[in-house]
Amino acid sequence: MGTMAFDAIETPFAKTDKIIGGSATYVAYAASNFVQPVQQISIVGNDFPLEELQALEQRGVKTEGVEIIPDKKSFFWSGRYHLDMNSRDTLVTDLNVLADFNPNVPESYQGCEFLMLGNLVPAIQQKIITQFKERPKLIVMDTMNFWIETAWEDLKKVITMVDVLLVNDSEARQITGEYSLVKAAKKILTMGPKFLIVKKGEHGALLFHADNVFVAPAMPLDEVFDPTGAGDTFAGGFIGHLAKTKDISFENMKTAIIVGSAMASFCVEKFGPQRLKEITKEDIAARIQEFVQLVNFDIALV
Amino acid sequence: MGTMAFDAIETPFAKTDKIIGGSATYVAYAASNFVQPVQQISIVGNDFPLEELQALEQRGVKTEGVEIIPDKKSFFWSGRYHLDMNSRDTLVTDLNVLADFNPNVPESYQGCEFLMLGNLVPAIQQKIITQFKERPKLIVMDTMNFWIETAWEDLKKVITMVDVLLVNDSEARQITGEYSLVKAAKKILTMGPKFLIVKKGEHGALLFHADNVFVAPAMPLDEVFDPTGAGDTFAGGFIGHLAKTKDISFENMKTAIIVGSAMASFCVEKFGPQRLKEITKEDIAARIQEFVQLVNFDIALV
Repeated sequence: MGTMAFDAIETPFAKTDKIIGGSATYVAYAASNFVQPVQQISIVGNDFPLEELQALEQRGVKTEGVEIIPDKKSFFWSGRYHLDMNSRDTLVTDLNVLADFNPNVPESYQGCEFLMLGNLVPAIQQKIITQFKERPKLIVMDTMNFWIETAWEDLKKVITMVDVLLVNDSEARQITGEYSLVKAAKKILTMGPKFLIVKKGEHGALLFHADNVFVAPAMPLDEVFDPTGAGDTFAGGFIGHLAKTKDISFENMKTAIIVGSAMASFCVEKFGPQRLKEITKEDIAARIQEFVQLVNFDIALV
Repeated sequence: MGTMAFDAIETPFAKTDKIIGGSATYVAYAASNFVQPVQQISIVGNDFPLEELQALEQRGVKTEGVEIIPDKKSFFWSGRYHLDMNSRDTLVTDLNVLADFNPNVPESYQGCEFLMLGNLVPAIQQKIITQFKERPKLIVMDTMNFWIETAWEDLKKVITMVDVLLVNDSEARQITGEYSLVKAAKKILTMGPKFLIVKKGEHGALLFHADNVFVAPAMPLDEVFDPTGAGDTFAGGFIGHLAKTKDISFENMKTAIIVGSAMASFCVEKFGPQRLKEITKEDIAARIQEFVQLVNFDIALV
């Protein structure tokens, strides 16, 4: 569940007109490599290209839960990245259809085992959870600084209802008031989630669970062409791997984080979800092997 | 080879009067856990406590190459760390004895196989190298932004003479004008060194060699008490492991980086080299095992 939208993106090196974006788009493109069907919940306007929905359908992404509003436009976001490709300025946010988003889980989606809540109004994330007659086996939730600042009470409530919280480093600090990510993680793990993933962009990601920590690097790349959607793609690879293996142990989540990191490393190579549309299972397997090489060392040499 | 000095340190949480510091001090404390003798080259004034030199001697650190100037004071640095513990302001730099430092490699040091050039005037680093009748098997060199800005021609020359260059991420960018660390590394590897280590503080370190990359995380810590000397301690652990194993392959350098990272993670736990004086071989072995846990994942689960 998340947004399907248009983005216009400026980086220090290039610029696009409106292209397809949205958290649910990236999650679906990433996750559908590992598990099918993916059951999408989102909302679009009359300007959203039908062939984009069809392209997703062909990858095993169900779109029954994607509401199409005939007399409105799709959510539109425009932003400009700074030279570090980590920070950005928002230029335009046109909510359009998103202003009235009040999703209903289709009957055919009942029984879903792995629920990914993309970044959205916390009250809507909560509504989705409660619409499942049987609680999904694993609920993963993304959020952002905007909701921490404007809807903290609602957000705090949803956080108690999920298994895995996904935030970036500054959001983990903002939620807890702790500068140390280890201390921040300890606090967040008392707020509901059993697992916390802290995304650090080019510096990788951390997974916290009880007293365990796992660190995954980001793939060092010649060039980050467009970071838009990298976090959502990471989330899609992460939950896609878990859904494929049906194993929600800490050990398997470590591997899921590597899979998510590999997917994110593709995402940033081109504008929007373009690169995710091109890559094959072989590309993905090769990239995951590169991650093994990247972090592997021989402890016997110590 | 490097400085032995006094530091006065302020962090957001605590403050010291003058304590022992200097790059060569940290390197020696770290390296002497893995290889003895360590042959120190440095310079101190009449205010440097003899018991500090004795404490190093007891750890197998030879101090014949540490010149003691009877009528001058030791190098003194004072700085204040910002809240992120990564950036800092220099409050005082009293060169004192360092202004006249013109080291001579003692005869008894000839035949040295592993040379660590701590951060210092590039011309002095070069002088040390040329004083060895037989080139050491491996020369590792640290430097900093100050020399990039004020002694670039000299620095460029020394860089051609070493095997491993050790810089932080902003220095790698400054040397090459490349924002991407991968592109920066490719350029630096054409300037002389066969290996480049990019230190990223709390985000770990990268090792580049030909087309190979290795990423090591930093240990996520509850608290970084004092980051002073962490980079030098990393260097000491790194070259200490290489000197112990006498294996300068890329594979073994990966392990050396983990050893260096483990040593650095101790260094930041207390002010100055205090924690490095306390730890045992068992502490070090346990910390290295924690690193294995931190990055290890089961590829068979993919």
